[in-house]
Amino acid sequence: MQLGACYYPEQWPREMWEHDIRLMKEANFNVVRIGEFAWARLEPEPGQYDFQWLDDVIGLLDQGGIAVILGTPTATPPKWLMDKYPDIYQRDKFGGVRGYGSRRHYCVNHPVYQELTKGIVQVIAARYGHDRRIQAWQIDNEFGCQDTTYCYCDHCLQAFHVWLEQKYGSVDRLNEEWGTVFWSQTYRDWSELILPAYSVCDGADPEYHGHNPALVLDYKRFSSDAVVRYQQFQIDLIRKLSDKPITHNLMGHFPEIDYFNLAEPLDFVSWDNYIDYPWDRPSYRKTAMAHDLMRGVKKQNFWVMEHQSGPCGWNVLADTPRPGQLRLWTYQSVAHGADGIVYFRFRAARYGAEQYWYGILDHDSVPRRRYREIQQTCGELVRLAPLLEGAQVVSDIAIVKSYDHLWSHAIHPHNRNFDYTRLLQSYYDAFSAHGYNVDLVGLHGDLSSYKVVVIPAFHLSDPDLKAWVSRYVMNGGRAVLTFRSGSRNWNNAMTDQTLPGDFRELCGVEVEEFDSLNYGRQVEVQIGGSTCLASIWCDILHPNGATTLGTYAGEYYDGEAAITVNGFGQGHAYYIGCDLDEHAMRELMGSIAEASGINPLPISVQNEGVEIVRKRKDGREFYVVLNHNARAVRIPLTGECQELVSGAAVTGELVLESYAIAILRHE
Amino acid sequence: MQLGACYYPEQWPREMWEHDIRLMKEANFNVVRIGEFAWARLEPEPGQYDFQWLDDVIGLLDQGGIAVILGTPTATPPKWLMDKYPDIYQRDKFGGVRGYGSRRHYCVNHPVYQELTKGIVQVIAARYGHDRRIQAWQIDNEFGCQDTTYCYCDHCLQAFHVWLEQKYGSVDRLNEEWGTVFWSQTYRDWSELILPAYSVCDGADPEYHGHNPALVLDYKRFSSDAVVRYQQFQIDLIRKLSDKPITHNLMGHFPEIDYFNLAEPLDFVSWDNYIDYPWDRPSYRKTAMAHDLMRGVKKQNFWVMEHQSGPCGWNVLADTPRPGQLRLWTYQSVAHGADGIVYFRFRAARYGAEQYWYGILDHDSVPRRRYREIQQTCGELVRLAPLLEGAQVVSDIAIVKSYDHLWSHAIHPHNRNFDYTRLLQSYYDAFSAHGYNVDLVGLHGDLSSYKVVVIPAFHLSDPDLKAWVSRYVMNGGRAVLTFRSGSRNWNNAMTDQTLPGDFRELCGVEVEEFDSLNYGRQVEVQIGGSTCLASIWCDILHPNGATTLGTYAGEYYDGEAAITVNGFGQGHAYYIGCDLDEHAMRELMGSIAEASGINPLPISVQNEGVEIVRKRKDGREFYVVLNHNARAVRIPLTGECQELVSGAAVTGELVLESYAIAILRHE
Amino acid sequence: MQLGACYYPEQWPREMWEHDIRLMKEANFNVVRIGEFAWARLEPEPGQYDFQWLDDVIGLLDQGGIAVILGTPTATPPKWLMDKYPDIYQRDKFGGVRGYGSRRHYCVNHPVYQELTKGIVQVIAARYGHDRRIQAWQIDNEFGCQDTTYCYCDHCLQAFHVWLEQKYGSVDRLNEEWGTVFWSQTYRDWSELILPAYSVCDGADPEYHGHNPALVLDYKRFSSDAVVRYQQFQIDLIRKLSDKPITHNLMGHFPEIDYFNLAEPLDFVSWDNYIDYPWDRPSYRKTAMAHDLMRGVKKQNFWVMEHQSGPCGWNVLADTPRPGQLRLWTYQSVAHGADGIVYFRFRAARYGAEQYWYGILDHDSVPRRRYREIQQTCGELVRLAPLLEGAQVVSDIAIVKSYDHLWSHAIHPHNRNFDYTRLLQSYYDAFSAHGYNVDLVGLHGDLSSYKVVVIPAFHLSDPDLKAWVSRYVMNGGRAVLTFRSGSRNWNNAMTDQTLPGDFRELCGVEVEEFDSLNYGRQVEVQIGGSTCLASIWCDILHPNGATTLGTYAGEYYDGEAAITVNGFGQGHAYYIGCDLDEHAMRELMGSIAEASGINPLPISVQNEGVEIVRKRKDGREFYVVLNHNARAVRIPLTGECQELVSGAAVTGELVLESYAIAILRHE
Repeated sequence: MQLGACYYPEQWPREMWEHDIRLMKEANFNVVRIGEFAWARLEPEPGQYDFQWLDDVIGLLDQGGIAVILGTPTATPPKWLMDKYPDIYQRDKFGGVRGYGSRRHYCVNHPVYQELTKGIVQVIAARYGHDRRIQAWQIDNEFGCQDTTYCYCDHCLQAFHVWLEQKYGSVDRLNEEWGTVFWSQTYRDWSELILPAYSVCDGADPEYHGHNPALVLDYKRFSSDAVVRYQQFQIDLIRKLSDKPITHNLMGHFPEIDYFNLAEPLDFVSWDNYIDYPWDRPSYRKTAMAHDLMRGVKKQNFWVMEHQSGPCGWNVLADTPRPGQLRLWTYQSVAHGADGIVYFRFRAARYGAEQYWYGILDHDSVPRRRYREIQQTCGELVRLAPLLEGAQVVSDIAIVKSYDHLWSHAIHPHNRNFDYTRLLQSYYDAFSAHGYNVDLVGLHGDLSSYKVVVIPAFHLSDPDLKAWVSRYVMNGGRAVLTFRSGSRNWNNAMTDQTLPGDFRELCGVEVEEFDSLNYGRQVEVQIGGSTCLASIWCDILHPNGATTLGTYAGEYYDGEAAITVNGFGQGHAYYIGCDLDEHAMRELMGSIAEASGINPLPISVQNEGVEIVRKRKDGREFYVVLNHNARAVRIPLTGECQELVSGAAVTGELVLESYAIAILRHE
Repeated sequence: MQLGACYYPEQWPREMWEHDIRLMKEANFNVVRIGEFAWARLEPEPGQYDFQWLDDVIGLLDQGGIAVILGTPTATPPKWLMDKYPDIYQRDKFGGVRGYGSRRHYCVNHPVYQELTKGIVQVIAARYGHDRRIQAWQIDNEFGCQDTTYCYCDHCLQAFHVWLEQKYGSVDRLNEEWGTVFWSQTYRDWSELILPAYSVCDGADPEYHGHNPALVLDYKRFSSDAVVRYQQFQIDLIRKLSDKPITHNLMGHFPEIDYFNLAEPLDFVSWDNYIDYPWDRPSYRKTAMAHDLMRGVKKQNFWVMEHQSGPCGWNVLADTPRPGQLRLWTYQSVAHGADGIVYFRFRAARYGAEQYWYGILDHDSVPRRRYREIQQTCGELVRLAPLLEGAQVVSDIAIVKSYDHLWSHAIHPHNRNFDYTRLLQSYYDAFSAHGYNVDLVGLHGDLSSYKVVVIPAFHLSDPDLKAWVSRYVMNGGRAVLTFRSGSRNWNNAMTDQTLPGDFRELCGVEVEEFDSLNYGRQVEVQIGGSTCLASIWCDILHPNGATTLGTYAGEYYDGEAAITVNGFGQGHAYYIGCDLDEHAMRELMGSIAEASGINPLPISVQNEGVEIVRKRKDGREFYVVLNHNARAVRIPLTGECQELVSGAAVTGELVLESYAIAILRHE
Repeated sequence: MQLGACYYPEQWPREMWEHDIRLMKEANFNVVRIGEFAWARLEPEPGQYDFQWLDDVIGLLDQGGIAVILGTPTATPPKWLMDKYPDIYQRDKFGGVRGYGSRRHYCVNHPVYQELTKGIVQVIAARYGHDRRIQAWQIDNEFGCQDTTYCYCDHCLQAFHVWLEQKYGSVDRLNEEWGTVFWSQTYRDWSELILPAYSVCDGADPEYHGHNPALVLDYKRFSSDAVVRYQQFQIDLIRKLSDKPITHNLMGHFPEIDYFNLAEPLDFVSWDNYIDYPWDRPSYRKTAMAHDLMRGVKKQNFWVMEHQSGPCGWNVLADTPRPGQLRLWTYQSVAHGADGIVYFRFRAARYGAEQYWYGILDHDSVPRRRYREIQQTCGELVRLAPLLEGAQVVSDIAIVKSYDHLWSHAIHPHNRNFDYTRLLQSYYDAFSAHGYNVDLVGLHGDLSSYKVVVIPAFHLSDPDLKAWVSRYVMNGGRAVLTFRSGSRNWNNAMTDQTLPGDFRELCGVEVEEFDSLNYGRQVEVQIGGSTCLASIWCDILHPNGATTLGTYAGEYYDGEAAITVNGFGQGHAYYIGCDLDEHAMRELMGSIAEASGINPLPISVQNEGVEIVRKRKDGREFYVVLNHNARAVRIPLTGECQELVSGAAVTGELVLESYAIAILRHE
């Protein structure tokens, strides 16, 4: 088990280093991440390098038994570099230059920046590539952060042309696929192509510039690919000079980069896990799904490279983590597949934009409650490593996550309140509420091990995707499809088939009409004897072989089918024609899971706020039980269990204090 | 009766055309609109034209008995054109260039674009100018749409100078009229003049740049005139080469272009009628007033050139029209004066920004409920054409609508919640609730036929307008004036007369003070024995000959006059010194209508959501009764009627199902 | 007592002047302010001056016994000037040029504008510098208004470099103080420095560009200093040519300029007092604190150079002042220290951006209620001048106000709902509710006369400030410090001491942790037997010598200290670790005032909305009692009083009608 902190020795007097390292050791740490923002310290003048300080700190860490994750510092080019090549700054969609002062203000497609990247990365990789004290590399830092995925400079335009030419071969083909005949937007030549920048806008929605949706989707794909390519550029440089594993710190639900593609060339995925930060209400379920996505993008365990260790924020602060929460969140990370936990940051920064992003230590370096809790947690994890490290999450259910679908829905969400990620979360939560773990899998992923696969709002389709889904069901799987399935082709054109397009036969239904619900309108849906509410969208279904599971009650489509299931090959295809409220989702997904033969858990799932993760290692299973509530809960158990942290036997009922955890092995 | 659809053959395979045209015929269509976005297809390379496809489709339509409205394609200049002359792009108020990707990104004042317009329009007009299959021309498409009325480029600045020079003659005169002595903004020369673009702003309201209000009003007038002039440029080109009537598709309540001026040179007005779209809650009364405005701008019947035929939206979708609504809305259009109904669009587009703007057919071309309802409706309309086509709306009441007043109120609305168009609507609704039709008339329109004329918030005045209003009352009319009357001169300077300025004698009152109501404050008003509430504005009136009809109850002006009426010549002038709530408006306008001698209807108006339009043709009257409710209503009748759609006799009570209509002739 | 109006003779026909002046005299006026926006009238062509009209009006005023405050007209450079030197326009943070059309669009750091300023100011000062009819000078108008404090042009960048070089001496020192090692932002040379303009941003908060907080704080200081320097430039020009006193019209709570610095070189402060304008709800307490700040920045009485005299607004209007309010507000101004009242404006402007900023007269020049009320008020004030003019506010309590602290809190407010000015107001209100007057004092101000000094959210500290506060307490004072005290050094770096940093010994506490409260969370606090609520911030205190006055009830820090007091030297230091609700603030501040030996008032303070100002002149005290309520109040009195406006004796109870005032002298 790798345990440690993000450390910025360059920001603190050298006199403090040894004391810091002693505190790390006492906290049971064995790894730190360093260097990822230190370009100006490593190359203070163009071409003049200073590695002495880095050598020194690596040496001191090594003496303390602490290994190093070394970052390439390309997220923060020095001022002299940007002054020398100001063309490197990103351009926004209005043509504005995103000037100096924050970080990541470079264009990944800029040839000069790529050359400069080569310079610094080669020097660092050559020096430390085979240094035994270096455990791994981190490429750059949080690609896309600070709103930097999308750049509209001329280099991006050129790179986009090349990307499009590779994809479509000819402009005629592009015109046809994009349907540029609409509004006379036909291109005669690659050089006429544009980026979806500022155009005339609709006064009602000034952000919506009415670009061709195929153009916008391809631009989003291109922008994601450009980041992946820039990462690959650094990976290639390092691989030539080093045998160490390479990672990048991803950002969980961050929507702008296809993380399946970004993760592919990495040796392992790591990510930055902040549960309670100022821009969103904390949600343990959202965090849980983020963990499962981070595990899913490479189908392997991962690290948390930045793990929340204190109250955080930039200009304003979120709540302070409660006693027990840092331990709870750490166990949640481990339960979902983290084999490494690196807390951010060792100590709060006195200077710069992140003064309020608190770490394990406050600015005054006094070890307090948070230090002690992390120290205790890491001590336990060291002890439990044989059990926990490398253990697998056991899951019979998968949800398909696709960035192409996410981007297309973002361009044209079809209903004001529709959100692709929130839809996925609602399915995730419905299964979680039964204690079932859920994997997140990408397009064309291996589905054969799953009893149920949810494929939400799968509007983009093509023959291969149709075949992939059909094969799964044909072979006995249960696929859950929803409204908007099959409504577009891969290049964001509307299908000319009757909906659900490619999935008509599979689902045995046709969508006769749909109804987008606005201004808070809700429609009742009857499932079995129960009534629930749809509030975003209603597909009015004509079953064509399928069995009706739910019908609308009210509106002009009263009595029409809303939810169906169709036998197909060895399996079943469900079609959920509307969004459902939380209770109905839980009931319906529970019954689908049951129908698929998934066994209920030996642990009661009746407690709201209690998360259960089923794990397996060396052929034996155990459960991590996490109480996210501020109060104690009593959890009924079936049979006899051993609690593996304490070693105590538990029978009949598990009592968990607020924010407490348990690891149960069922006898 | 002209019935049809907007059709985009260039967006669909030629193989589908004949099938499409067959479906049109079966839907009882006799006209289509085509070509208005097809510039890139008609002139794929500069100076190289391709009319073959257009000839072909016109030929096929003709074989199907379907005539053509042909659009000039200037709303969507091809990419090659914009690349060749990028200076044509509009500039926004911050100097930003509104680049490619949507439509209408051209400046109407640009000489090169005018030259290019001339090129394409002449070629098309020469080819089809006398083609018997072409029924009429549509100029461009939806002037002003996509927020394109206001451009801040150098060509606009030059044109604005010329416009101002023509208006004021000398800079000294302009300085005097604008009062540029305020804040030292005196101009010495025409070349010093500016457009009201970005200046320093007020932090509390970043959109408000504090420009001289006379400058802003003239800029709004100029911008409207520029569009009218650009339209005239195209009209002149076509008139030389064609004898066909010319129209343009207006946008109902669109506020930025003076539609009286835009309509003047057209042979007939047409407009684009979307009742339920995503940017506003649907309102049949708002739609009704839009129809009446479209009829009023030319004082003649009109076409609906784009009539909603399905759910619509750009990135998000509005509700789907309920069964009966497409028929209901079509009858509403016809009732208010539409002699042509062209549904938008024949089939939903697979590509481009309007994928979610659904048409009669879905993307899969299957005729469904909406097709069948339109088919039925058009069948009825063909049958009823002798009754309905060219029939006149019978109205004894008019509301004065003025774009100059609208613009000035938009610049300085005097109260945060004041909205000129909403004020007009509140008067419109008050009369509609009694079943009275209302005409909308422009400045200096003929008022002699009206028993009541409402002139709301008529703050801009000049001697001619004063005379126009006075003459109407002098000759026996009842004018209803409101707060803010006469407070400014024509060039947006505050009057130095005691309010209501030019209308003091007419109304026999003086405004001693006013009170702007903020933060939800409301003031009670007593009218007769009833109490109602003002929530925007209170003029404290000193009657000077007038009779007090209503007084304030509360505030420091408790007991002061709020509403008055003054005998003047043969007529009466009402002064409504405050805004009134809906119920009070209805009561007060009802009593004014009654006093004017307008007869109550033979049809009960007690049902909320039921609209009644009184029509006359060939000297005989009839009523179109429209049930906008989702439920059936029972409507008491006086005497015996014939229902003209079914031919049935109706006595005592008319029962209308949800969204149903009836046409009654009273015996 | 100076009484008068702002007058714009250049905007009205010369024929009206004498009539206007007669009305002024009848209103008991003896002063007008003129000329501050008249540059284009004074210098209609470059280098050609026209003073005739100004001479004429000054002459007519003089004949009427009315003296003149003459403004330098630099707030509104003429169009010809801006056309000739367009580089003078301000640049915004996105690089946009803030073009012509409003006012103040010049950069104070621009050398050419400084030269042009010199030109016009010298000409005017030379002409009127010793003219006996001129009473004083006003420099420019409302520095910073219209969002003009911050400019991002190259001249500002250059001036900022010079400012920084003077402050830090070397770039190395700056790098160290700013901590530019964070995110590799180290500067090698002064020429590499930036302004905190547009950079990449955080999607969640597009205004937050993540700049180094030390850079931003210094830029805010520099921008304030630049305005002060530009004012000094004008003062120096005038002093050479004139012996008249000089003022500038400040803007009360305006946050962007350090008013202590701006006031320092002025002979007297004046300010623009609008109580009810459209951008904020009116609050007499907010106005009261603004008055006290305006008195505090120079520790002397002041003028109101623009005093609200009617309903006002730019595009929308606020409520109309009620009968009595203009008199009430005038007395409030005088009570808080105004020795001059200049109403804005004599008559509402017919033209330009301020048409809706109503004056004493409406556009029609008819003297109405507002004129009569001001006439009466000024008549009283002339009569009462021997009592009121130069009288001092008696205050035993002070609040420290610091612009450096305000700016730093604005950059990083630490909690979404934290607002430094609102925190000051909450302490101000708590004392006001007891009838205690409060002085506002700047950093290093003389505190020796105060029994209680509140130093709210004093997060920036340095050894001198530490000594200043400590000395006050050591010598017997009662200092009230709050959460965030001592958390940063003077250059906005976080302290590395345990909090409250420099104030640990003084307060005898350590902050063990803090908790930022989000999403409406509140925490109970027990003080004595009472319970109140904190809703922004909770410091969890470990007393280290201090006595606990309040503890938290709830959360994980239940029972921990929230409020403490520490004996230190001869005095006491309170530490308020959380924000408190209004009632608790009132109780706690009341008890601190009582403990300090401040005597309760002889006038009951139980009436909400009644303000009491304790005054002293010539060794005798009196009270101005102001009823801000729309209803009459009965105020119990101790002992016998004389009411000095009427001369009547009052015993037992004072009855004040709505908006009425009284001046009481206790026998």
